Amino acid sequence: MIKVGVIGYGYWGPNLVRNFMEAPGAEVAAVSDLNPARLAAVRKRYPTVKTTANASDLIKDPQIDAILVSTPVSTHFDLGMAALRAGKHVLIEKPIAASSEGAMRLLDEAERRSRVVMVDHTFVYTSAVRKIRELAADSSLGEIYYYDSVRVNLGLFQHDVNVIWDLAVHDLSIMDFVLPVHPVAVSATGMSHVAGRPENIAFLTLFFDANVIAHLHVNWLAPVKVRKTLIGASQKMVVYDDLETSEKVKVYDRGITLNAPEDPESVYRMMIGYRTGDMWAPRLEVTEALLVEASHFLDCIQKQERPVTDGEAGLRVVRILEAATESMANRGRPVELAKGRVTAWSHS
Amino acid sequence: MIKVGVIGYGYWGPNLVRNFMEAPGAEVAAVSDLNPARLAAVRKRYPTVKTTANASDLIKDPQIDAILVSTPVSTHFDLGMAALRAGKHVLIEKPIAASSEGAMRLLDEAERRSRVVMVDHTFVYTSAVRKIRELAADSSLGEIYYYDSVRVNLGLFQHDVNVIWDLAVHDLSIMDFVLPVHPVAVSATGMSHVAGRPENIAFLTLFFDANVIAHLHVNWLAPVKVRKTLIGASQKMVVYDDLETSEKVKVYDRGITLNAPEDPESVYRMMIGYRTGDMWAPRLEVTEALLVEASHFLDCIQKQERPVTDGEAGLRVVRILEAATESMANRGRPVELAKGRVTAWSHS
Amino acid sequence: MIKVGVIGYGYWGPNLVRNFMEAPGAEVAAVSDLNPARLAAVRKRYPTVKTTANASDLIKDPQIDAILVSTPVSTHFDLGMAALRAGKHVLIEKPIAASSEGAMRLLDEAERRSRVVMVDHTFVYTSAVRKIRELAADSSLGEIYYYDSVRVNLGLFQHDVNVIWDLAVHDLSIMDFVLPVHPVAVSATGMSHVAGRPENIAFLTLFFDANVIAHLHVNWLAPVKVRKTLIGASQKMVVYDDLETSEKVKVYDRGITLNAPEDPESVYRMMIGYRTGDMWAPRLEVTEALLVEASHFLDCIQKQERPVTDGEAGLRVVRILEAATESMANRGRPVELAKGRVTAWSHS
Amino acid sequence: MIKVGVIGYGYWGPNLVRNFMEAPGAEVAAVSDLNPARLAAVRKRYPTVKTTANASDLIKDPQIDAILVSTPVSTHFDLGMAALRAGKHVLIEKPIAASSEGAMRLLDEAERRSRVVMVDHTFVYTSAVRKIRELAADSSLGEIYYYDSVRVNLGLFQHDVNVIWDLAVHDLSIMDFVLPVHPVAVSATGMSHVAGRPENIAFLTLFFDANVIAHLHVNWLAPVKVRKTLIGASQKMVVYDDLETSEKVKVYDRGITLNAPEDPESVYRMMIGYRTGDMWAPRLEVTEALLVEASHFLDCIQKQERPVTDGEAGLRVVRILEAATESMANRGRPVELAKGRVTAWSHS
Repeated sequence: MIKVGVIGYGYWGPNLVRNFMEAPGAEVAAVSDLNPARLAAVRKRYPTVKTTANASDLIKDPQIDAILVSTPVSTHFDLGMAALRAGKHVLIEKPIAASSEGAMRLLDEAERRSRVVMVDHTFVYTSAVRKIRELAADSSLGEIYYYDSVRVNLGLFQHDVNVIWDLAVHDLSIMDFVLPVHPVAVSATGMSHVAGRPENIAFLTLFFDANVIAHLHVNWLAPVKVRKTLIGASQKMVVYDDLETSEKVKVYDRGITLNAPEDPESVYRMMIGYRTGDMWAPRLEVTEALLVEASHFLDCIQKQERPVTDGEAGLRVVRILEAATESMANRGRPVELAKGRVTAWSHS
Repeated sequence: MIKVGVIGYGYWGPNLVRNFMEAPGAEVAAVSDLNPARLAAVRKRYPTVKTTANASDLIKDPQIDAILVSTPVSTHFDLGMAALRAGKHVLIEKPIAASSEGAMRLLDEAERRSRVVMVDHTFVYTSAVRKIRELAADSSLGEIYYYDSVRVNLGLFQHDVNVIWDLAVHDLSIMDFVLPVHPVAVSATGMSHVAGRPENIAFLTLFFDANVIAHLHVNWLAPVKVRKTLIGASQKMVVYDDLETSEKVKVYDRGITLNAPEDPESVYRMMIGYRTGDMWAPRLEVTEALLVEASHFLDCIQKQERPVTDGEAGLRVVRILEAATESMANRGRPVELAKGRVTAWSHS
Repeated sequence: MIKVGVIGYGYWGPNLVRNFMEAPGAEVAAVSDLNPARLAAVRKRYPTVKTTANASDLIKDPQIDAILVSTPVSTHFDLGMAALRAGKHVLIEKPIAASSEGAMRLLDEAERRSRVVMVDHTFVYTSAVRKIRELAADSSLGEIYYYDSVRVNLGLFQHDVNVIWDLAVHDLSIMDFVLPVHPVAVSATGMSHVAGRPENIAFLTLFFDANVIAHLHVNWLAPVKVRKTLIGASQKMVVYDDLETSEKVKVYDRGITLNAPEDPESVYRMMIGYRTGDMWAPRLEVTEALLVEASHFLDCIQKQERPVTDGEAGLRVVRILEAATESMANRGRPVELAKGRVTAWSHS
Repeated sequence: MIKVGVIGYGYWGPNLVRNFMEAPGAEVAAVSDLNPARLAAVRKRYPTVKTTANASDLIKDPQIDAILVSTPVSTHFDLGMAALRAGKHVLIEKPIAASSEGAMRLLDEAERRSRVVMVDHTFVYTSAVRKIRELAADSSLGEIYYYDSVRVNLGLFQHDVNVIWDLAVHDLSIMDFVLPVHPVAVSATGMSHVAGRPENIAFLTLFFDANVIAHLHVNWLAPVKVRKTLIGASQKMVVYDDLETSEKVKVYDRGITLNAPEDPESVYRMMIGYRTGDMWAPRLEVTEALLVEASHFLDCIQKQERPVTDGEAGLRVVRILEAATESMANRGRPVELAKGRVTAWSHS
C-alpha cells in the first residue's frame, strides 16, 4: 500500500484525491491546503484523511511515500524539491515548474535519489490521445506533415501566467507524446486585452529538423469553446475533437498523391492528385484519464520505472513555454530551443 | 449600356461572364482565352459574344468600355496596365497584382486617366460580410480585440503562388473591409510538404497600432473543410462560419467585465467577471455576391466614384501578402508594412 | 426544517438525497432500500442519515414530514398511498403510478388529507423548458401548430415497462407543461425486437380539440443519441436540443404568410408566402433542475400550495401512457383520452 | 441513338433535359410545355431541340423513342398511357400515378406492348442509397429492425397533394429499394394548418410480416431542414444524413447482445448487453444521380430489361401513399396494403 500526501486542494486537488482513493494499492494519508474551508471539505468527505495547513507536515511524515503537488505553478519547484530531498516520489501538476532551470534541477535531484518524478500531463492518459499515439507509432498515418490545434473558450483568465502557460501546455504535452520528433524552435505571437494582465490570446508555431510544422492556437476570450486538433500526414489524417461525445478521433483516408506528369512540359500542373477514401472513428475505451495516470504512477514507484510523462517530458514542455513567451514579446521573432540537460547539470 | 470584355475564361471567368450578362446596364461584348475549347464553350452558351485568343483585341476594341481580368496573377499587372492605357475601366481578380509595386503603378495610372480600377475581393460583397461590417461600424460590438480566421481544406495546390496568396487573400480582403484599422506588421510561418512547390500551410499574425491582433490560418492539405472566423470585442463577439447554410453569422452577447475589487489586496483575482447573454443570428439577404459586385462596378463607372474594393484596398492586401511571404521565409521574423503610396509615385 | 425520508436509493435516489441535502429548509432524515450495499453507501456519504431496509420505518416515523418515492413504477401507488395515509407529503418519481386509477386514488387521498402530492417531472424544472413555456405563454410564438420530439439512444432496455413509459414520459411531461391545451386522443405504434420484452421503439401521435398535433418518437436501440424537439407556430418556431451545451433553445422567426391572391383564378398557388427572419438563442440560467424542484416542493408544503407538477399533471401523463400502450397493441388504432377525475372518485 | 421527348419543363424538366443531353446514346429531340416562356428558355439554351405547347405532338412523333413525363401528378396516367399506346418507352416522375389503379394499368399496358415503364425515384440512383442497399443486401448489417426517417423543412406547400405525396414518396422509394421486405399495413397521422389545404405535416408507421417497423416523418412547416434516416439492425446500424457534405452514410458497429443469465432468477435483468464499436463512413462515388438514372433507362431500352425502379416499384409506393392518406383521415387507424396485381387486371 503506497501512502500519498496531497499538497493543494483547490481546483484539481479534489480530482487527485478521489482518483488516488480509488486506485488499487494506494491510499491518501493526508492533505494540506492554506484554506481551512477546503480542509473541512476533505474531512467531511474523507473522515480518515489527515489534514493540515502546513505542507511540510506531509513532506516530513515518514509514513508518506509519495507527494502530489497541486498548487500554483510558482510553488512547484520548491515543494517538489523539498519532497524529493525528503526521499518522496513526486507527481507535479503541469507545468512541472515555472522555469526550465527549475525543471532540470528537479530531474537531477530525482535521478540522484532514484525517486520517481512525474508530471501530470493528464491528456496523455486519455484513450483518445493514446489511440492517436498508437496510430502515429505504427505508421498507419505515414509521414507526419503537421500538427495543428485550437483550444479556445471564454473564461478563467489567470493573473500569474499567460494563456500559453495555461492552455497551450495541454497541447504541448499531447504533441510531445504523439509526435516522433521534438521541436527545435518556436515563433509565438499574442496579446493582452486587459491592462496589466498577461496575454489572453496567443499563437505558436513550432519548427522541427524534420519536414513537420506544428501550430497552437489558444484564447481565453472566445465566444465559443473549441478543442480541435488536425494531424496531417502522407497516408491518413486525424481530426481529434475533444468536445465530441462519441467520436472524438476520426481518421480520414485522404491526402495527395504525387505523379510524374505524362507530358513533361506540364510538370507543375500534373504532379498532384487528390485522394479521398473512407473515414473511420475507432472505438475508444471509456476510462477516466486520471485513474489511469494514478495507476501508472503507482506502478512506476513499485517497479522503479520511468513514467511516460517523466521529468524530461515536463522539461521539454517548459522549455517551449519559456521560448514562446520570449518570442511573443518580440512579435514572433523565432527562438531556438535548448537540447539535452547540459546547462542544468552545471547549475545543480 | 456598358460593354465589357473578359480576359480569361478558366475557373472564375465563366462566373464573371454570367453575372455581367445578368447585371442591368451591362453587356459582355467579347471574351478572350488562350484555350480554343473554352472559347467554343463561350460561343455555345452565348452566341452573341465575340471570342478571340488575343487579349489585345479586347483592349484595342473601341466599343469596349471596361475590361475584366481573370487570368493567372503574374499577368494581372501587364493586362491591367494595358487596359488602363487604352482608356478602359478595369476589374481585376484578386490579388490585384503580383507585387505591391505593380499594384501602385496600376493605381497611379487609373488616377491619372480618371478610370475606375477595382479588385475582385468577392467576399466583401456577400451579405454575411456586409452584415459583419455593419455591426463593426455601428459599434454594436464595442472595441474590437481580435480577428481570427481558419480557411483550410484538401485541394487545389497551386504551382505558382503559395497558400497565402491563394487562400489568405480572401481573409485579408474581408478583414480590410471589416476592421476599422489597418495592420502595421506581420509575422508568418509556414511550410511546403511537396518538394519544389510553394508553401501549402501557413499561419499569419497581424499587428496593429491599436490593441488589436489578427491571425489567419490557411492550409491546402486538411482532411476537412473549415471556413470559420471569430471576432472578439468588448461588447459582443461574432462567429462567421461560411459553411453554415442558414446561420452564417452568429452574434454572441458574451465577454468579460472588469470590476474594481472590493478588497484592494486581492486586486488580481477580483478584476475579471464573465458575461454570458443571448446569441443572435441575423437574417441575411439571399443574393449572389458577384452580381452585387458587378452592379457596384457598373455604378462606379457611371457615377465616377471609387469602388469599395478600390485599387488601394488591392494594394493594402498585396503589401501584406508580400510581407507575410518574406516573414515566412524567416520563421516568423516580423516584417513592417509600408504605408501610403510614396514609393509608388516615385516609380511611375 | 422539513424532514424527508427517501424510499429507494438506486439510479435516481442519490440525486434526490444530494439535492434535498442542499436545499435550504430541508434535511434528509432517513433512506430505505432493499439492497444493503446501497444503504452502506448512504452511511459512508452521509453519516447522519438513518438507513433501513424497511420502507415502512420511514412512513411510520413521526419525525418525517415528507416521503420521496424513488422505486420501480409498480410500487409507486402502494408506497405513495401508505405515505399519504400516514399524513406525509409525497414526491413520486415519474410516472406517478402504473395506472391512471392508481394516480386518481393518490390525488383523491392527498386532497382529502390536504397533503401535497407532487410528481417528479424533472424536465419541467430546467431553465430550457421554463423558457419555452414562457415563450408559449406570452404569445411570442403565436398560435401553436405542432409539437414534435425525438428522444432516442442506445441503452437501458427496461424489462417491466415499454419505451413509452420510460422515455416518452419525459416528453409528455414537458408537453403538458408547455402547451396551452391537453390532448384528447392518441395513436401509437411500436415494436419489440427482443423476444419476451416490452416494445423498444415507439411513435405516438397526439390529437387535440384545437388545430394542434403532437408527435413523439422514442427508441432504446438507436446508434446515436438524439434529444430534439421542434415546436411549430404561426409567429415563431422553437428548436430545443437538450444535447447542445450552450444554445439549447433556438427561436426562429420563420413561418408562412397567407395572402389573398391578386388573380382570383390562381387562388391556390398564390396564398402562401415564406418568411425567414433572425434566429435567437436566449440565455438560460445555469441551475440544477432537481434543486429547483426540491425547493418548489418544500415551498408548496410550507405555503400549502399546489405544485406545478401536481398529481393532476401526473394523472394526465399516465392516462396518455395507458392509452398509447393500448393503441400500440392495435397498430395505431386511435384511443380517446378520459377527462376529469369522475371515474376515480367512484373507485375511492 | 435513342431520341427522347420531354413533357413538362417546370421544376424538374430542365434537369431531365440536361442529363439526357449528357447521357451517351441519347438525344433530346423535343420538349413540350404549356408555358411559352419556358419553351423560349429551351430554345435559347438548346437551339436544336424542337418545342411545342402540345404534348401529343411528341407522343405522335415517329422519330421519338421514349417519353419523359415531368408534369403534375394528376396528368401522369393519361400522358403515360398515351405514350405507351403510341409504342413509346416512358419514364415518369414520382409518384408514377395519382392512384394505384392508374399505376396498375400503366404496368399492364407496358407489359402487353413490351415497352419499358420506369418511375423517376431519383434517390435510388444516388451513391449514398446504393451503398446502403449494398450493406443491407450483403448482410453486413445483420437482421434489419427498423427504418426511421425524418424529412422536414420550411417551404413549397403544394396545393394539390398532401405532404405525404410530396415528401414521403422519396423515403418510400428509398425504403422500397433498400429493405428486403415490403410493408403490409400502414398507420398515418397528420394535419393541415392552412384552411382548405392538404395536410402539411404527417407521420407514417409501416408494418411488415417480418419483425421490422418503419416510420416516416414529413413536414413542410419546420424551422430547420432535416434529411436524416436511421436504420437499426442486429449487427450494425446506419445513419444516413443527406445534408452532410462529406460523410452522408455512417455505419455504427453498435447494438445489443442477448446473453443467457447466469442466475436463472434474474432472467430479465441479465439478458441484454450493449455493444459499442467503431464507426465507419464509406467513401461515396461523386456522381449525379439523374445521369446514372438516365443511363440506366437507356440501357433498359436497349437490352429490353426491367429497370430497378420499374412500374412495380412505382405501384408499391403509390399503394402506400393511398393507404396512408386513408389512415390519416381516420387518426391513424391502420390500413392493410393490397398485394400483387390481381385487382388491377380485372379492372383493365
